[in-house]
Amino acid sequence: MAQQPAPVVSPEVAPDGSVTFRLRAPNAQKVEVRGDWGEAVAMTKGTDGVWSATTGALKPDIYSYSFRVDEASISDPGNNHLKPGLYGTQSLLTVPSSEPQPWSLTDVPHGVVHHHFYKSGPIGDQRSFVVYTPPGYEQNRNARYPVLYLSHGSGDWQTGWVEVGKANFILDNLIAQGKAKPMLVVMPFGQTLPGSPRQQRNVAKFLDLYAKDLFNEIVPAVEQMYHVAAGSENRAIAGLSMGGGQALWTGLNHASKFGFVAGFSSWIPLERGDNFEGMLARFDPARKDNPKLWIAIGEKDFLLDNNEKLHAWLQSKNVQHSYRVTEGAHTWRVWRRYLAELVPLLFRS
Amino acid sequence: MAQQPAPVVSPEVAPDGSVTFRLRAPNAQKVEVRGDWGEAVAMTKGTDGVWSATTGALKPDIYSYSFRVDEASISDPGNNHLKPGLYGTQSLLTVPSSEPQPWSLTDVPHGVVHHHFYKSGPIGDQRSFVVYTPPGYEQNRNARYPVLYLSHGSGDWQTGWVEVGKANFILDNLIAQGKAKPMLVVMPFGQTLPGSPRQQRNVAKFLDLYAKDLFNEIVPAVEQMYHVAAGSENRAIAGLSMGGGQALWTGLNHASKFGFVAGFSSWIPLERGDNFEGMLARFDPARKDNPKLWIAIGEKDFLLDNNEKLHAWLQSKNVQHSYRVTEGAHTWRVWRRYLAELVPLLFRS
Repeated sequence: MAQQPAPVVSPEVAPDGSVTFRLRAPNAQKVEVRGDWGEAVAMTKGTDGVWSATTGALKPDIYSYSFRVDEASISDPGNNHLKPGLYGTQSLLTVPSSEPQPWSLTDVPHGVVHHHFYKSGPIGDQRSFVVYTPPGYEQNRNARYPVLYLSHGSGDWQTGWVEVGKANFILDNLIAQGKAKPMLVVMPFGQTLPGSPRQQRNVAKFLDLYAKDLFNEIVPAVEQMYHVAAGSENRAIAGLSMGGGQALWTGLNHASKFGFVAGFSSWIPLERGDNFEGMLARFDPARKDNPKLWIAIGEKDFLLDNNEKLHAWLQSKNVQHSYRVTEGAHTWRVWRRYLAELVPLLFRS
Repeated sequence: MAQQPAPVVSPEVAPDGSVTFRLRAPNAQKVEVRGDWGEAVAMTKGTDGVWSATTGALKPDIYSYSFRVDEASISDPGNNHLKPGLYGTQSLLTVPSSEPQPWSLTDVPHGVVHHHFYKSGPIGDQRSFVVYTPPGYEQNRNARYPVLYLSHGSGDWQTGWVEVGKANFILDNLIAQGKAKPMLVVMPFGQTLPGSPRQQRNVAKFLDLYAKDLFNEIVPAVEQMYHVAAGSENRAIAGLSMGGGQALWTGLNHASKFGFVAGFSSWIPLERGDNFEGMLARFDPARKDNPKLWIAIGEKDFLLDNNEKLHAWLQSKNVQHSYRVTEGAHTWRVWRRYLAELVPLLFRS
């Protein structure tokens, strides 16, 4: 038997937050590491065939990254924290902080995450949705809880908001701090047709199936199995990217069903031009009691232009809403923060 | 911007069950694909820098595999079905069958999978366990359910039995067919000290922490939050590999607490030589009402010798047990089948 080479340690985080990445690839010609901290970092090959690079000090956060090896992208074989996705697998890296972050796993009471499997009549396949119940839910049989419906982006699945977004820990921490009302969070699977929104030839059908699956399958199942507070004021919908578009489209076109609608770095589902009247054909800007509306996007996000246009259109129609352009690009680093900002605002009326 | 190369399609399963694997690695010198179907398969490089190989016809099953690129192992970048693990990430491949397999996702009523997060007093860290509740559990508030405690192997986590082992679908199918009693399945996290069993310097402490975490934390939490049937006859424990050793050690040394104990391809936790009296110091072979005992291992498993010795020792002590040597090696292909065989035997007394 040939001797096995020593295992490669990667990633390695130094106390100052700089990170060293390593990859054994003795015959590669060019290797770099790309992550959502910003610029790609070129790696250099050592005499042992191991490529390495060290970043500058990174701020405490959870980062996604992958290696570009000649012409191929791979996750880090030395790291078992993974972010699988429809567009490829990335690796996850935590740069720790002295103080807990909003998404840190801390020593507070924890909620439970439930995976429900079902056959979707509208979509026709077997799929699943995920439900977070807050600490104390099992003990408080007579309590009734409001529900946030929370959708993932086009590269993810129904598990993305928990596994990458840490939604359950964000809720645990905010509830423990008294900053959020105990609530359920329901995470649907938003891929209703093959392909991403950018590949969709039929945006209307893609969105219609999302709403049908939500209203005909998921909401009835949740309201049957869990102790849910009645009334639109106890129901919110939010999402990121593709899921932001789904939340905005569904929440505004079914405005009587929701007390709060939020879009994070949203795909704006316009089929042609700036046709917001078409996109929001069932939304009446003049209606009393429209849901509260919260829109945020990073200044470096490739979807910024369309979000700016939606903001301008809402202003032109005198629709009250919160619109914020924040630091950041189209990454989970932004979305965890948006969730931690949004949740304290919900179910306060 | 340089033009991106076309995406590589991998794996591709032909109707006869042969599988083509592809990997872009233009500068690699040697690439092969290794999987739990048996022999490694050498790949050859095309003019486009993409290596490929096609297997013979594989039987319908779920396989794990990875690529060996020069001296490094990587998962398949073209495949987003992953099996993360402590010893590296593998990719998962399903060769479909005309008839559903015991672990197939089929159109039957589905149970729910719950993730519970807690601080373990005995171990001192934040961790989680997973609970499967059978179809109808929420509706049948007055029913009481037996519980199978089911442990993973040293390369996995508490989610392994669901994500790779498909335990929830195996239970769904057996219950729908009337072959299994509706039951809960509770899946602990079995890594109680850093490192695998082979690296343990203190096997006794490693096992003692497993039992303490189970009896002091997990069982009380489960029996408080779920509708659980009382009595040892309604409690079983099983596991695979490291978890098989944990199940055998815990179940036999605490024989009054379990009606059934099972080990799949078990690590046999002997600290020195063949000291079964030491390993099972609290087990009384002559006791009435010892749990039923079920042991199985594949004929190609590297742990076969120690399982044979345990079998002989149990025979020498006149301990009734089922012992089977089956086809297969130390892989999930065997463990899914063992679970599907075991579950119909449980809670029948």
